[in-house]
Amino acid sequence: MFVYADNAATTSVSKTALDAMLPFLTENYGNPSSLYSFAQKATEALAEARATVAKYINAEPKEIYFTSGGSEADNQAIISAAKLGARKGKKHLISTKFEHHAVLHTLKALEKDGYEVTLLDVHEDGVVRLEDVKAAVREDTCLVSVMFANNEIGTVQPIKEIGAFCREKGIPFHTDAVQVGGHMPIDVVDMNIDMLALSGHKFHAPKGVGVLYVKKTLPVFSLIEGGAQERGKRAGTENMAGIVALAAALKESCDNMEANNAKIIPMRDKLIAELSKIPHSRVNGSIEHRVPGTVNMCFEGIEGESLLLWLDAKGICASSGSACTSGSLDPSHVLLSLGLPHEVAHGSLRLSIGEYNTMEEIDHIIATVPQVVEYLRNMSPVWDALEKGERPHLI
Amino acid sequence: MFVYADNAATTSVSKTALDAMLPFLTENYGNPSSLYSFAQKATEALAEARATVAKYINAEPKEIYFTSGGSEADNQAIISAAKLGARKGKKHLISTKFEHHAVLHTLKALEKDGYEVTLLDVHEDGVVRLEDVKAAVREDTCLVSVMFANNEIGTVQPIKEIGAFCREKGIPFHTDAVQVGGHMPIDVVDMNIDMLALSGHKFHAPKGVGVLYVKKTLPVFSLIEGGAQERGKRAGTENMAGIVALAAALKESCDNMEANNAKIIPMRDKLIAELSKIPHSRVNGSIEHRVPGTVNMCFEGIEGESLLLWLDAKGICASSGSACTSGSLDPSHVLLSLGLPHEVAHGSLRLSIGEYNTMEEIDHIIATVPQVVEYLRNMSPVWDALEKGERPHLI
Repeated sequence: MFVYADNAATTSVSKTALDAMLPFLTENYGNPSSLYSFAQKATEALAEARATVAKYINAEPKEIYFTSGGSEADNQAIISAAKLGARKGKKHLISTKFEHHAVLHTLKALEKDGYEVTLLDVHEDGVVRLEDVKAAVREDTCLVSVMFANNEIGTVQPIKEIGAFCREKGIPFHTDAVQVGGHMPIDVVDMNIDMLALSGHKFHAPKGVGVLYVKKTLPVFSLIEGGAQERGKRAGTENMAGIVALAAALKESCDNMEANNAKIIPMRDKLIAELSKIPHSRVNGSIEHRVPGTVNMCFEGIEGESLLLWLDAKGICASSGSACTSGSLDPSHVLLSLGLPHEVAHGSLRLSIGEYNTMEEIDHIIATVPQVVEYLRNMSPVWDALEKGERPHLI
Repeated sequence: MFVYADNAATTSVSKTALDAMLPFLTENYGNPSSLYSFAQKATEALAEARATVAKYINAEPKEIYFTSGGSEADNQAIISAAKLGARKGKKHLISTKFEHHAVLHTLKALEKDGYEVTLLDVHEDGVVRLEDVKAAVREDTCLVSVMFANNEIGTVQPIKEIGAFCREKGIPFHTDAVQVGGHMPIDVVDMNIDMLALSGHKFHAPKGVGVLYVKKTLPVFSLIEGGAQERGKRAGTENMAGIVALAAALKESCDNMEANNAKIIPMRDKLIAELSKIPHSRVNGSIEHRVPGTVNMCFEGIEGESLLLWLDAKGICASSGSACTSGSLDPSHVLLSLGLPHEVAHGSLRLSIGEYNTMEEIDHIIATVPQVVEYLRNMSPVWDALEKGERPHLI
């Protein structure tokens, strides 16, 4: 049995998205910036895609900028806010310890340029506290950036509350909503969001296309300079096929969100319930504040990478954390931010499921993971020492 | 008859490119950063695409970075060189007056950050002179950026000679080769090129994917921070479908380059010969130093935009210049850089043809353009004044 349980890393392209994009890879190849009627199909499709995306996050079309993905959108949002801040003599940015690297590394680059960054704790449950944001805010704070849901552990943050506080203080508020788009409702007005990033391939559009939303009252600075595309704020000929696919996929995901989640959440909860029976295991992050599809667990005494390889051999695609950092040998910065010791953080498993998964697949995971964990523990000198009482159990 | 004669703006996706990308929009949806075997198809395809692109410009795979297009590649190359220069106290950049806005606007942004920019004249024939580069170089020059071929008029620059001079001086040399990739041979070693930008959709790959080549001895700075993709120099999940299509399209275009150009050049030359018979017309830029497919002409006494609309009505897709600036009412900065007066520059027509065009289509253009020009001139008060001798002809 083949089970794809890594939907937080990427998803398959839906038939709806593929059907939407194919005309723009075949007959409708015009450049949307061209004036002749042949190219108007592209121009119109671009406008329609922008309106669709706007509608599904309750924004206006002119607040939507298409990018090459979530990372670019995060970079542009943060750099834009930083440049705006610098103009006003404000060079302090607030974010959290467990953001995606697209946020953390951009902030690090800004630190080298003389900005100051405060990274908030995310507590043991992986949920940022509004009080911590309040305590960190300064007169010279020019941005608060808190991810909507964490990509590794799936915990959802109090976005609306943080947004309301920032709005009150007049501080731009950005959220990396890459794990949320198409999976949970987003309303930028109700949630007081000034800037937001989405990535198409997390909701069944292809890889290489994303969205930056910026509230119309906020100036936008370009990350990529050049032509007048995207109202002069993002140069480069538009990825037409990707953009129409993104809009179609977002529409489909949002229109079916309730039905999809009615299917996904019981699968996730069964995974949590059954895999928690493994001795010395733990679920990382709040159970309550959680995206529908993601479960992240630690199993003491094993290496996450070995677990993944064995699951792969059993046909199960899963990850230890973010695909973006999979080349790294360091334990996840997200798990460390929860206060987990290195030894425990090393034995992590992220299972992220979607509407194309089935309960049979979940049962296959539930039958397989305990076997593999036991097998690996039997081979592990660390586990041996733990069981003999030579070292204390940490979970 | 429908004639697409705007291949410098964008091209159709070739069947080869589409066939290459489809598996990555359907069954092979794995994230190339994931560890399990399912994703290895993506990982391997990414490596193969990189090797293919490298081969066709005589680079090494590790010198190839996939981007979202030519604009991003140009931006990253220039900003990278500027940052490297600043570290050494060198903050002077040399480029030309008729670069694409992806270069010019990036340079303008750097000027605001305290860099100095010298823009070289391109002379009446639209060809940069090596002597002008030599005269402009200073002790603190950190980059020379000269486009391989101009996007509006198609003139080809003495890249190899400028590259050799820069190599000798130890100054990084960048070229925007967006109009050249797949259409003329590129050899980064022989041509002494340190950095180069390509855009897939100019050679029958889809829109939204490009290439930055950087010589391995030159440090690269990220434009988009985040995950470890592209050896840590370009974050964001890779546009897999776009990347494999780009590699397939580049291979196809380069493998068939000689045959394609044997077909394209006679079409271009017939256009030049026949349309030059229109009184008070001129071909912009050197005839000799020219990409195979592009012709740019001015017709005195008419508005370029009116000409385009009439050609559109006759089924001919053409442009007045760059699609990237088509929203602008200003005359082309490229034509102005040739020394053309505003009145003449306003009446420009770019025809850019490719291997999918036919001689019948060329004949349709040749039959149509003189009619439309005559029609527009008959309605034009400017032309009336010119013909009555009340104003001097400029062409």
